[in-house]
Amino acid sequence: MGGDFGPQVTVPACLTFLKSSPHSKIILVGQQKLIERYLPANYSSRIEIVHASAVVSMNDKPSSYLKGQQDTSLENCISLLADKNADAAVSAGNTGAMMILGKKIAGCHPAIDRPALVAPIPRLDGKTAFVLDIGANVDCSADTLVQFAFLGATVSKALTNTEDPKVFLLNIGTESIKGSQQVRYADQMLQNKVDSLNYQGFLEANRLITGNADVVVCDGFSGNVLLKAIEGSMKLSLDNLYKAFEANLYNRLVGFLALPVLKRTVPDLDPRYKNGTLFVGLKQILIKAHGASDEFAFRKALETAKQSAESEVVKRVGQSLDAMMDQELV
Amino acid sequence: MGGDFGPQVTVPACLTFLKSSPHSKIILVGQQKLIERYLPANYSSRIEIVHASAVVSMNDKPSSYLKGQQDTSLENCISLLADKNADAAVSAGNTGAMMILGKKIAGCHPAIDRPALVAPIPRLDGKTAFVLDIGANVDCSADTLVQFAFLGATVSKALTNTEDPKVFLLNIGTESIKGSQQVRYADQMLQNKVDSLNYQGFLEANRLITGNADVVVCDGFSGNVLLKAIEGSMKLSLDNLYKAFEANLYNRLVGFLALPVLKRTVPDLDPRYKNGTLFVGLKQILIKAHGASDEFAFRKALETAKQSAESEVVKRVGQSLDAMMDQELV
Repeated sequence: MGGDFGPQVTVPACLTFLKSSPHSKIILVGQQKLIERYLPANYSSRIEIVHASAVVSMNDKPSSYLKGQQDTSLENCISLLADKNADAAVSAGNTGAMMILGKKIAGCHPAIDRPALVAPIPRLDGKTAFVLDIGANVDCSADTLVQFAFLGATVSKALTNTEDPKVFLLNIGTESIKGSQQVRYADQMLQNKVDSLNYQGFLEANRLITGNADVVVCDGFSGNVLLKAIEGSMKLSLDNLYKAFEANLYNRLVGFLALPVLKRTVPDLDPRYKNGTLFVGLKQILIKAHGASDEFAFRKALETAKQSAESEVVKRVGQSLDAMMDQELV
Repeated sequence: MGGDFGPQVTVPACLTFLKSSPHSKIILVGQQKLIERYLPANYSSRIEIVHASAVVSMNDKPSSYLKGQQDTSLENCISLLADKNADAAVSAGNTGAMMILGKKIAGCHPAIDRPALVAPIPRLDGKTAFVLDIGANVDCSADTLVQFAFLGATVSKALTNTEDPKVFLLNIGTESIKGSQQVRYADQMLQNKVDSLNYQGFLEANRLITGNADVVVCDGFSGNVLLKAIEGSMKLSLDNLYKAFEANLYNRLVGFLALPVLKRTVPDLDPRYKNGTLFVGLKQILIKAHGASDEFAFRKALETAKQSAESEVVKRVGQSLDAMMDQELV
């Protein structure tokens, strides 16, 4: 039901997803009549509808959706997840509500106070930098940032088998006098944890892609700005290129020859190809799709959910966190 | 003396700059012997050296450079500016020190409490979005953000003759429940100023380049992340492209044909082409060059300084602020 477009985007995306994923099933949770409007008359037996009378809107404050049983699509969806009736849940809806209901219904790993949204960012050298938080926790204390550092390290280990992930704190300079008080406190705390974490210090936003960071820790405000700025720039680069290849006949001819080459760079450049971010720290797989997801982007988020379930990411992150707890590191 | 490389980058950049700017003069402020090492024996009469025995380092805290006369290159440089012995000053050094010494020695416009670093960002439609602050003020109260909104509007009017600049607040969503407390307070305050400011609400980072914002207001932490993320992405896009054109013989041939076309997109893509950001709110032209500036980038910052002096930007911003004060808007 969520996101900027609701079922008119999410339902067709599910239908396309099922075609390419013959062993997957989808439970659509929301207003049955509205959902059925976007389904063919004889829809696949791999689709099930679970009705929910209410919807958490993008503007709803926690006080409105935390009053117990509200029969909202988000609440019912996460309940299906918590009751093991689903392996992963995806929503393009209210991020804050997803975090709070996720924590309340699915529950957090005991080592973690607040789940974080983590985004995998492709580095120039082909490896992956995991950025957290990217929008679920707007204000973060130094303690929370330190917890995210450990959480990020377990994600990097679990998802990319990185042995001793290099962990950085996002800052606006590399000198110790730079940045907000929380960031400077978190830096001091992390400097004292070198035995249990490969902490490397501050990282500036321009070094995220070109550097060697495996984990980048930040509050949800600056993390969100970071990700959306990258997304916007990629779009600008693409548009600039296409404009340049249209300027005159010679350029159009070259553009025609160059198109197959350029197309190969598109998956790296187009942010819609990388949709769906995981709430880490929860006991189940909950995926946040971009609020502005179109059908293509929402399908990518469904694929992220499927891959997350197949790779048992939550189980593996949980095992890493268990090990850290056993060693009394977190 | 400042930046990651000091005189070995700044002095050669000045020499190249003077070649293309036959009517400009440069005063190099710093350690005379070190500066002379990078000058030819018979250097141009359009270069003057003003000696300063000390240097503000990138790690110095305000307490160390605010103890009165320190004979630092930055202090002496801004004093030359304040005494009208120079039309503009450029440094790649300590941003915090530039702001604090700029405020102390050159002074602020009476309508403004804190100067802001403002960056012009090229929009996809060819117009310019001015982003402030981008790193001089890490923590900003709602009051400061509101002041930056007015300051940004005067800059947009003065530099691009935009009649009624559209002002946005950077946030991680467009709904009123989104964002930090300061951002939500500033939004409420700006909603009440609609008579004097064309305030349009929240803007997400991905809409900076593709949207219609003339002014984007943010604290210096998220502004810095925003700008450096754009810079990093542009570099990634370029590198991806070059990599794609090198993959095999066909691609290399197409790359050879496409090079003149691609080169034309480079000024839009390469952040070094847009170096030098202005401290607005000060009574003089003080330009912050990127700390990591190489010779090419530092020369671009010198050109920004020259253009700023020629366009009398500070005088024009001052006149706009005067008019606002007369109408009791700020």
